[in-house]
Amino acid sequence: MKVRVLVRLKPGVLDPQGRAVHHALEGLGFAGVVDVRIGRVIEIDLADGTSDEAIDEMCRKLLANMVIEDYAVEKLGQAEHA
Amino acid sequence: MKVRVLVRLKPGVLDPQGRAVHHALEGLGFAGVVDVRIGRVIEIDLADGTSDEAIDEMCRKLLANMVIEDYAVEKLGQAEHA
Repeated sequence: MKVRVLVRLKPGVLDPQGRAVHHALEGLGFAGVVDVRIGRVIEIDLADGTSDEAIDEMCRKLLANMVIEDYAVEKLGQAEHA
Repeated sequence: MKVRVLVRLKPGVLDPQGRAVHHALEGLGFAGVVDVRIGRVIEIDLADGTSDEAIDEMCRKLLANMVIEDYAVEKLGQAEHA
């Protein structure tokens, strides 16, 4: 089973990487960019039957820094990213 | 309009960061982890009406390194991440 974890900075936390990309996009001539935020996407191939609690624990213990980051878990169908 | 760009290493490209996380998860006692791949998620708040071509061009020119990375663009509804 495939799981996608999105780890993003909490709202309000300064995102210098996003600021840099925003600035670079404007420098390349792209108009209409209002905001850019950058996070991580972690795709985990797990044994079928791994519990949601175990996945949450992975996120809290290792994948996300809960002080400044939020995470979201999305389960991917078997067909996607086959 | 909000757009989410997922930038991931192409299949076959070595992902040392993913390997390190895989190893760390096993070290923490999580069983059943088969594979871990790590990429970036870039959430861009764009002026309404920005064309798909412009978004593709942003990805190719700046957001993804097309030699080793693939990207996928997902449009987020106004309700999400409001």
